Amino acid sequence: MAADRNFLIIGHRARTAPDWKLDDLCGGGGRLDVLVRCVTAALWVSHGLRRDTDAWLLLLGPPAPPVAVHFAGKTVRYLNPDERSTAALVRNGLVKLRNRDSVEASPGVTLHRIGLVELLARLPPAVLLDEAGDATGFPAAPLTIVLSDDRDPTEAERAELESAPRVRLGDRSLLSSACITLAHSRLDSA
Amino acid sequence: MAADRNFLIIGHRARTAPDWKLDDLCGGGGRLDVLVRCVTAALWVSHGLRRDTDAWLLLLGPPAPPVAVHFAGKTVRYLNPDERSTAALVRNGLVKLRNRDSVEASPGVTLHRIGLVELLARLPPAVLLDEAGDATGFPAAPLTIVLSDDRDPTEAERAELESAPRVRLGDRSLLSSACITLAHSRLDSA
Repeated sequence: MAADRNFLIIGHRARTAPDWKLDDLCGGGGRLDVLVRCVTAALWVSHGLRRDTDAWLLLLGPPAPPVAVHFAGKTVRYLNPDERSTAALVRNGLVKLRNRDSVEASPGVTLHRIGLVELLARLPPAVLLDEAGDATGFPAAPLTIVLSDDRDPTEAERAELESAPRVRLGDRSLLSSACITLAHSRLDSA
Repeated sequence: MAADRNFLIIGHRARTAPDWKLDDLCGGGGRLDVLVRCVTAALWVSHGLRRDTDAWLLLLGPPAPPVAVHFAGKTVRYLNPDERSTAALVRNGLVKLRNRDSVEASPGVTLHRIGLVELLARLPPAVLLDEAGDATGFPAAPLTIVLSDDRDPTEAERAELESAPRVRLGDRSLLSSACITLAHSRLDSA
């Protein structure tokens, strides 16, 4: 079962094997730093977690894409707010996934060899965060807020999301993690 | 000269000597992870920096507090959005500071042996982010938005900030870095 609020972040270069070091998330990890900052923004509040929220990282980099990493707010353990320790959970997940189709690598952290199409089919209705979007509010929960990493979604990804409302959060183009914080704030006050 | 927007984050336990490892920001660094996330939230937009904003980290942990680390948005170089590389700039600054009163450790990153009172005297008027605050809007720039790390401000710190307006950003208690994102958003749209 998916949570009420889901954030799905597309990581175009994020490595899909644990062949990188925790000292090198930006380079060897394929900008995994962007994705783990998004997990922190999606799941953390002061001194605790948002138990009604899930974060989904879609890793699309070499050598074996796609891999989806699911952080379930309700059940996740051993999650800290810093980038390195969240990346360690992803890395540990990739180690345990090996040739399997899916694995629960640690409590509340599950990996699946599925891509965007299958993810969108499993999750609540999608909303795409888009600087050129025409909506400023979100539909009612449950929902899945889709963001891209530091690169724009590809044409193929946009086609998969064609029926999703496009919501804009402001006039400035911000970090993906900042967009998640603003989306939560808008949903919290709705 | 201070920037139009300043964020001052009080780090109650942040180490004031470079005797910790970049692999251990949370423990050995005295929750430096909290502070460097704040720098990213204060200075980064998508693919660039906010040149009108400065971030000031006040390190108050052992062995030689206080140390203020100034990141000047206008001139800073070698700043990346990830926690580890920002922490490396702080660490490098502490190495170069040694027994000096102040030093520009790298372009746009300057360290000073000054505490909260002197910082507040040098910077534009302060506003305290406070969940119990009664204001919801910010005064006009230039201004200095003051936040605490994961601990509340001490009584002495609150006394120094007694004349500062107290602004609340919402009903939920959020990470300091998330508060900075929300403050920027409110100022951007004002």
